[in-house]
Amino acid sequence: MEHYLLDNVFQALTDPTRRAVIGRLGRGPASITELAEPFGIALPSFLKHIHVLEAAGWIRTSKAGRVRTCTLERSALAAAEGWLGQQRAIWDARTDRLEDLVTHESTDA
Amino acid sequence: MEHYLLDNVFQALTDPTRRAVIGRLGRGPASITELAEPFGIALPSFLKHIHVLEAAGWIRTSKAGRVRTCTLERSALAAAEGWLGQQRAIWDARTDRLEDLVTHESTDA
Repeated sequence: MEHYLLDNVFQALTDPTRRAVIGRLGRGPASITELAEPFGIALPSFLKHIHVLEAAGWIRTSKAGRVRTCTLERSALAAAEGWLGQQRAIWDARTDRLEDLVTHESTDA
Repeated sequence: MEHYLLDNVFQALTDPTRRAVIGRLGRGPASITELAEPFGIALPSFLKHIHVLEAAGWIRTSKAGRVRTCTLERSALAAAEGWLGQQRAIWDARTDRLEDLVTHESTDA
C-alpha cells in the first residue's frame, strides 16, 4: 500500500510541467485556466497532468460554477520528504560509523 | 537540462524494488548478486532496475573480475532533496504571509 502510494507520488514528479504546477500552487490555489496559461500546451494534455497530480495526492480540485480550482495538498510532499529523509538518515549513520572506525583505528595505532 | 535530470531522478523512485536497492546501498556498496538475492526476481529484470538507477545518477557500478559492485551516489539524493526543499520553502513562505495577514488584521481590529 505504502509502496503503491510512493510509486504515484514520485511518478507525478517525473514531468517538468507537473513540477511547475506544484511550484505554482505552493504560492496559493489557482483555477485550471490560470494554471494552464503559461505552458502553451493543449488543454486536454494539461488536464491529464492535473489528473495525475490529483490521483497521486499532490493536489485536490473543487468546482464552483464553471471554474475548477486546484489546491496543493501537504501529504504528498510530506511522503516524498519522509522517504528521502530516511535514505539520508541511513547514509549519515553509515558515514558516522566510518568516522568512528577511523577514530578507533587512530587510537589503537 | 535540469528538467531532464530531475525527470530521471524521480522516475528511478517510482518502483519499490529500486527504492529498496537505494535503501540497501545507503548501508554500503554491494555486488549485484548480493543486491538481487532478497527480491526473488529474475536477474535480467533486476539488471534493468540497476540500469535505470545508474542512468539516473543514483548509483555507479564498477567491475572487478566477474563481480560488479554498486555504490550509491550522493548527487541524485541531493537533487531530489533540493527540489522538494524548494517546494517546502515556497509553501512555508506562503504560510508566513498568511500568518502576517491574520496578525495585521487582529492588530487593526
